[in-house]
Amino acid sequence: MLLRSSSASPFARKVRMAAMILDLSDRIEIVPADTSDPADSLRAQNPLGKIPTLVLEHGRALYDSSVILEYLDFLAGGGKIIPTGPERFATLTRAALADGVADAAILRIYEQRWREDGARSARWLDHQSGKITRGLATLDADAPQAGVADVGAIALACALGYLDLRFGGAWRAERPRLVAWLEAFSASVPAFEATRHREK
Amino acid sequence: MLLRSSSASPFARKVRMAAMILDLSDRIEIVPADTSDPADSLRAQNPLGKIPTLVLEHGRALYDSSVILEYLDFLAGGGKIIPTGPERFATLTRAALADGVADAAILRIYEQRWREDGARSARWLDHQSGKITRGLATLDADAPQAGVADVGAIALACALGYLDLRFGGAWRAERPRLVAWLEAFSASVPAFEATRHREK
Repeated sequence: MLLRSSSASPFARKVRMAAMILDLSDRIEIVPADTSDPADSLRAQNPLGKIPTLVLEHGRALYDSSVILEYLDFLAGGGKIIPTGPERFATLTRAALADGVADAAILRIYEQRWREDGARSARWLDHQSGKITRGLATLDADAPQAGVADVGAIALACALGYLDLRFGGAWRAERPRLVAWLEAFSASVPAFEATRHREK
Repeated sequence: MLLRSSSASPFARKVRMAAMILDLSDRIEIVPADTSDPADSLRAQNPLGKIPTLVLEHGRALYDSSVILEYLDFLAGGGKIIPTGPERFATLTRAALADGVADAAILRIYEQRWREDGARSARWLDHQSGKITRGLATLDADAPQAGVADVGAIALACALGYLDLRFGGAWRAERPRLVAWLEAFSASVPAFEATRHREK
């Protein structure tokens, strides 16, 4: 399988982490994608031009990151990173919340990348910041259990890692419990450190 | 259960349609939400401030729309709108693609709502249009089978309905096969017409 990915994407990192946790990394070749390049084959594989996109052996592609994580869990036998019991939907919602925080952070970065100084909207940036602030407060009050590496924990770790990467870890001062959670997660799940973004 | 919803949202429509298809509408009370109002209880239920959000009896909330659809399918016994066989991941990917088309359409609408005339970005609007155009081409070539009302078909119908609502059906001229698919879907799945947006 080919994984269209980029080193900094929090959603691609979810897939790289899940593959390592599920011992599937050997079956996945990572092929970097440039989402801003119309000539990149990514847009033929995923018309949305988004990463991660997982291209299967017979050429069919799977996305988005949630679908890919469920597919990897299925390949690994099922029930490994997505609970099958009563906590399933709370876990999937936690993953959606963490993804929403990462999405809002990405929209803040896009505001810099896509618009000139005078054309940026303080109101839009504030709107996205509100999602991040409220999302982290809820995730802080309802963090995954220590040692658990399910889709909720994976998505949360990747969202926090992205905030560290792009916003210098400004979230840390107000969320000591999430800081402690991330530290414990990082210590118990080597895939987190192994998939960290490294500047080339 | 309470569904925080709005009449025009394509993602909330997915949930309203799925509830009807699965014969669960009686168990869901629709409570309109104003995503732009900070005082709306929505932000306490879902920190992202997004609809749809499904509030369960004991107060816990589920989101996003994909998670809610899976939960409704589970309540209905499972395997009703999400295939459990080999076509599962292709169906989930089709739903993600249709959702991505709706997302891009919403970002185009937001560009009007959030920004003044001079501050709109033609490049950003084009970038979103590209996702819509390429997405519809792929969905046209790989539409759901006639008569199927799974999450892929539901998401596609809601995305097309949203394009009709907000962009006057401009997509129709180039996609006669999707037009025919939507017509057949609408005829065989009454929930589509029953959930159509109506101006107040």
